[in-house]
Amino acid sequence: MFMTRNEDGITAAVGALQALLGKRLATGLSHREQHGHTTTWLENQIPDAVAFAQSTAEVQEIVRICAAHRVPVIPFGTGTSLEGHVNAPMGGISVDVSGMDKVLSLRPEDMDVTVQPGVTREQLNTELRATGLFFPVDPGANASLGGMASTRASGTTAVRYGTMRDRVLSLEAVLPSGEVVRTASRARKSSAGYDLTRLMVGAEGTLGIITELTLRLAPQPEAVSGAIASFPGIDAACQTAQEVIQLALPVARMEFLDEAAVGYVNRSHDVGLPDAPLLLLEFHGSPGSLAEQTEAFAELARDNGATEVAWSTDPEERSRLWRARHDFYLAALGLFPGRVGFSTDVCVPVSHLAECVTASRARLDELGLIGTNIGHVGDGNFHTLVFVDPQDPENRARAEEYVGWLNDLAIAHDGTCTGEHGIGQGKMKYLGKELGDGALAMMRAVKQGIDPLNIMNPGKIF
Amino acid sequence: MFMTRNEDGITAAVGALQALLGKRLATGLSHREQHGHTTTWLENQIPDAVAFAQSTAEVQEIVRICAAHRVPVIPFGTGTSLEGHVNAPMGGISVDVSGMDKVLSLRPEDMDVTVQPGVTREQLNTELRATGLFFPVDPGANASLGGMASTRASGTTAVRYGTMRDRVLSLEAVLPSGEVVRTASRARKSSAGYDLTRLMVGAEGTLGIITELTLRLAPQPEAVSGAIASFPGIDAACQTAQEVIQLALPVARMEFLDEAAVGYVNRSHDVGLPDAPLLLLEFHGSPGSLAEQTEAFAELARDNGATEVAWSTDPEERSRLWRARHDFYLAALGLFPGRVGFSTDVCVPVSHLAECVTASRARLDELGLIGTNIGHVGDGNFHTLVFVDPQDPENRARAEEYVGWLNDLAIAHDGTCTGEHGIGQGKMKYLGKELGDGALAMMRAVKQGIDPLNIMNPGKIF
Repeated sequence: MFMTRNEDGITAAVGALQALLGKRLATGLSHREQHGHTTTWLENQIPDAVAFAQSTAEVQEIVRICAAHRVPVIPFGTGTSLEGHVNAPMGGISVDVSGMDKVLSLRPEDMDVTVQPGVTREQLNTELRATGLFFPVDPGANASLGGMASTRASGTTAVRYGTMRDRVLSLEAVLPSGEVVRTASRARKSSAGYDLTRLMVGAEGTLGIITELTLRLAPQPEAVSGAIASFPGIDAACQTAQEVIQLALPVARMEFLDEAAVGYVNRSHDVGLPDAPLLLLEFHGSPGSLAEQTEAFAELARDNGATEVAWSTDPEERSRLWRARHDFYLAALGLFPGRVGFSTDVCVPVSHLAECVTASRARLDELGLIGTNIGHVGDGNFHTLVFVDPQDPENRARAEEYVGWLNDLAIAHDGTCTGEHGIGQGKMKYLGKELGDGALAMMRAVKQGIDPLNIMNPGKIF
Repeated sequence: MFMTRNEDGITAAVGALQALLGKRLATGLSHREQHGHTTTWLENQIPDAVAFAQSTAEVQEIVRICAAHRVPVIPFGTGTSLEGHVNAPMGGISVDVSGMDKVLSLRPEDMDVTVQPGVTREQLNTELRATGLFFPVDPGANASLGGMASTRASGTTAVRYGTMRDRVLSLEAVLPSGEVVRTASRARKSSAGYDLTRLMVGAEGTLGIITELTLRLAPQPEAVSGAIASFPGIDAACQTAQEVIQLALPVARMEFLDEAAVGYVNRSHDVGLPDAPLLLLEFHGSPGSLAEQTEAFAELARDNGATEVAWSTDPEERSRLWRARHDFYLAALGLFPGRVGFSTDVCVPVSHLAECVTASRARLDELGLIGTNIGHVGDGNFHTLVFVDPQDPENRARAEEYVGWLNDLAIAHDGTCTGEHGIGQGKMKYLGKELGDGALAMMRAVKQGIDPLNIMNPGKIF
């Protein structure tokens, strides 16, 4: 695999792309900088040009030109990924598909929809509002659906509605050869050959560019209830989360905030919660079932020592209950002016969650870092947010040390170095530790088979 | 890819395997015949020997010997697959893992379990009985879990609990190189590189031999209710099934029997149902929610013209209601002595189900075939059972014509040529029609990357 810049190829490709796209090939520095990685402290490695594609046929042409000149192709949606997926370490062409933003066909009778990759999840849900359906995957950022598929995104609702892995029925993609493939039919399930859909979901653009997605929708819930409970310790909160899953309470969201996170919100917004670990739940269902479920949760929480339990089906009151979750990030940033929040992501079997979150807290304190743990605890997925002073290299070095330690901790507990952010550049060194050389070699064999020239998003994953 | 027998290699490999395994390498004709395909009219293509493996290390040795001599390796669980997956068209070694039948570790706190590939689903559920958990995928046959993963099996419960795709957390497999890989950690979700787990699930043994599976379990339902409804026509039954899904009624099973199937059971067992299309449902939940859900179903069914609706939470009464589903196959075989039942499998978007099932009925009649349509209608998956006279080549030719027609029909309706049986040998000619040459080339590139010698189950899928 080439790991250096191919200057002559890049020059030739940029020329050919200019002829093809005219003004829709941007070579100005500001466009290029916006299309390198911008969301963390990873270095911004800018592409040589940004191609604003408007159709599958155009993506095909762009990829063919890049392949002919052995030039890297870096797919770009909204640039909200967190591990350097859109960086161009060897230069090349960023292919921005944000202009491919049409909902192509909606089939309420099958509860599925076909969209272009630049459609964002909020845009899709706005367009779906009148149909009684919605697209449930919610990673927080208003990401593009193509990008969400590429990083196998999930978020707060995965415990009930699954991740992008579960919600993508079929993809159209342009392969490194320039060929267009459709990965699957629109059938709900299939045993027809290799699961190409799941191979593309999470491939981070290293096997091709997604140009169309067919997605499974969910019925908008008849009613929604929100609940929160404060616990005397991390153990009690995690134990309650585990029991919710074991009892199969059909929780739609189940979020955890540690004492630090709740404390930030109390200090800046005075929400009046105890400075203690907090669980926030949302239930979707019929009005009758919601009462039953929420009561069952309240009982579990109290049995595990919860000091305050509150729930409501009223939309305003639900918002108020969930305010700590929605506000804590900005609340924290407000408390620590000049710092930037850096988010890292691991996922462990639920039985190891309390131990890992407790150890994480201790390690943050040991390293003198300002940080907090929040989690999608139904899945065992948690994030540490570290508030770093970008002007202080020593502070940043300690934060990086923490991230390495946390990933090793998760792997040692039979977990993964990333539950939902992906490998990108930031987690490359942990993937082999997690899965071993054999699995890495197997991934490389797949990559080599599909992208023998290594033009698709090189320098990511491995 | 080699497509002929490698006589010298086979002789050498059998010799080396005899030295390794002693009596556990069977070369007698009866063992070999049992390990070729036996479940349909596909020709039984026997392997040259059957290796009864007892450990991952032994599977590794067997694969290494076969690789050294360029000899096909055909993984074998219980032999219940339906499309010729275990045939040995170029000879080779059947690797029977049914002796690898231990439940290795059970973690109720994480609701997961690690098993060897020869554990059958009934065996697993027997061992789980006291834990409050169960493994929900139910393809009918008491298949091995390794085989179920390899064919991406599903069955009656997929509408609620997903398919093997959704239920396998992680696999250990021996690759064609003889290397052992673990595809994922035990975390509930992950974005760590390519989804090797989903690549192996459904690969039909063409990429390696599964030697260990970690599976997601589900809580045993607190209560279960069964319901049936008879409809004036296929349309009304399918419309009701669609509405059940759209209303998100958490149905655990939803089966369809056409008029012919119900008629067979009436004629042989006198169950007293109208000779009309039938839906059979099962709900899992709390006692309170079950009543609500079952009532909601009854109302939908009546609104769509259902003539008889019955439901019950009593186990005996539920069994009685579901008797038509359990008994129809043997009932039909009893009515047509000397015939064998041949099952084919397609899956279409739910909105096309009624049209496809109606067309299927008409085509069976046109061709003068005895057959019936039954389906897992929540997923749009249906099977046609054709009762064929094995002594009558003309009857069999018409049945084969029907199967080809049905697959083309499903593909023309944006569906798949197989929802749950797999490609094997029987569906090879439809895979390209369904997904196109590009997708097939992509699968071949993956195969070539992982199994460059084409020793793993050659002559299947493509």
